Amino acid sequence: MPEYDRLALPVGEAIFTQRAIRRVKPDPIPDADLKLIFEAAGRAPSAGNRQPWHFVAIKDSALKQKLQELFVEAWWERRHRNGIHTPEQVPAHDRAALRLTTELANAPVLVLACTTAHTVPNEVLAAAQNLHLAARALGIGSTFTRLGPTVDERVKELFGIPGDAQIQYIIQLGYPQGNFGPANRKPVREIVSLDKWGQPAPFAN
Amino acid sequence: MPEYDRLALPVGEAIFTQRAIRRVKPDPIPDADLKLIFEAAGRAPSAGNRQPWHFVAIKDSALKQKLQELFVEAWWERRHRNGIHTPEQVPAHDRAALRLTTELANAPVLVLACTTAHTVPNEVLAAAQNLHLAARALGIGSTFTRLGPTVDERVKELFGIPGDAQIQYIIQLGYPQGNFGPANRKPVREIVSLDKWGQPAPFAN
Repeated sequence: MPEYDRLALPVGEAIFTQRAIRRVKPDPIPDADLKLIFEAAGRAPSAGNRQPWHFVAIKDSALKQKLQELFVEAWWERRHRNGIHTPEQVPAHDRAALRLTTELANAPVLVLACTTAHTVPNEVLAAAQNLHLAARALGIGSTFTRLGPTVDERVKELFGIPGDAQIQYIIQLGYPQGNFGPANRKPVREIVSLDKWGQPAPFAN
Repeated sequence: MPEYDRLALPVGEAIFTQRAIRRVKPDPIPDADLKLIFEAAGRAPSAGNRQPWHFVAIKDSALKQKLQELFVEAWWERRHRNGIHTPEQVPAHDRAALRLTTELANAPVLVLACTTAHTVPNEVLAAAQNLHLAARALGIGSTFTRLGPTVDERVKELFGIPGDAQIQYIIQLGYPQGNFGPANRKPVREIVSLDKWGQPAPFAN
């Protein structure tokens, strides 16, 4: 029996009940689950099968805390530029993201998802999507966020990330305090056309 | 019973047996399957839930043929720049891609996967990965390729793609002539570190 048989959740359920889980319990994730999650990530396709990605899995509490501090600095720096200076001023659509500024380091594992080549922009995203779905199948919640250029170099230094690699996402992994469930998305007819852009696709109705 | 229950394949099997399928039968794909594939694509996460993607599903034979011609032009233009001028000169690792230059338009459906915003580079890739996995669950093969700047503007014009949208991938969909099965990937210990880049992750052994 291949190890991946443990990811037994139907792919439809995994895809359609994948929502961002930002509030997680501190409970540790078993090593065997972490391995399977990263193996699933690594199965993603890439141009020329170059697999231009690397993941730094952070379990160390002090490092998680430092990463959260730098994340918070970059997060608020972006809001300050838009005239937002206190949590009360954060608009409703941004409140869920605000939560990460206080909760990020509570997760048992944080992951820096990096690209190691740049022929195709942000190619690690396909691997990250596999990672989310494999975590979901194991009952582990995930979400991801971006750092921002203000602190990028300092985070790279902190984690020894080489100059030619680029951090694309911080992924948070942990057992959900809430529930998985459907996310809010556009109806399919709005994201697909038939033969020409803007021409309705009859199959999408 | 939700429609997505038809995507019953275990997510582990979908992820670990997803390989690029380039030789496909011309048999049409049922509309209900196309709808489900694009719905799955649209469930992918994106920054701020902006869902900055649009798909043009091409079924029209003449349009598929024209797209193949432009793809072939761009494909060979890149090889010519590297001194490769005939199929015999194409190196082994590039042979599978060469196949697409003659087979692309045989697929019942080609898809232009586009981004409609560029805050995060190439964000449609997460949706494309969902699309591949949903297709896999329905027994439909898929692969994707990139166009190249030489012909990008002409393809945008042909399919009425607005100036602020960007074509990221051509996705080919069709029933496989060969089999699904494991793809060749790096061992997990090579793509993941613990706490610092380059520090071995014990869980990955």
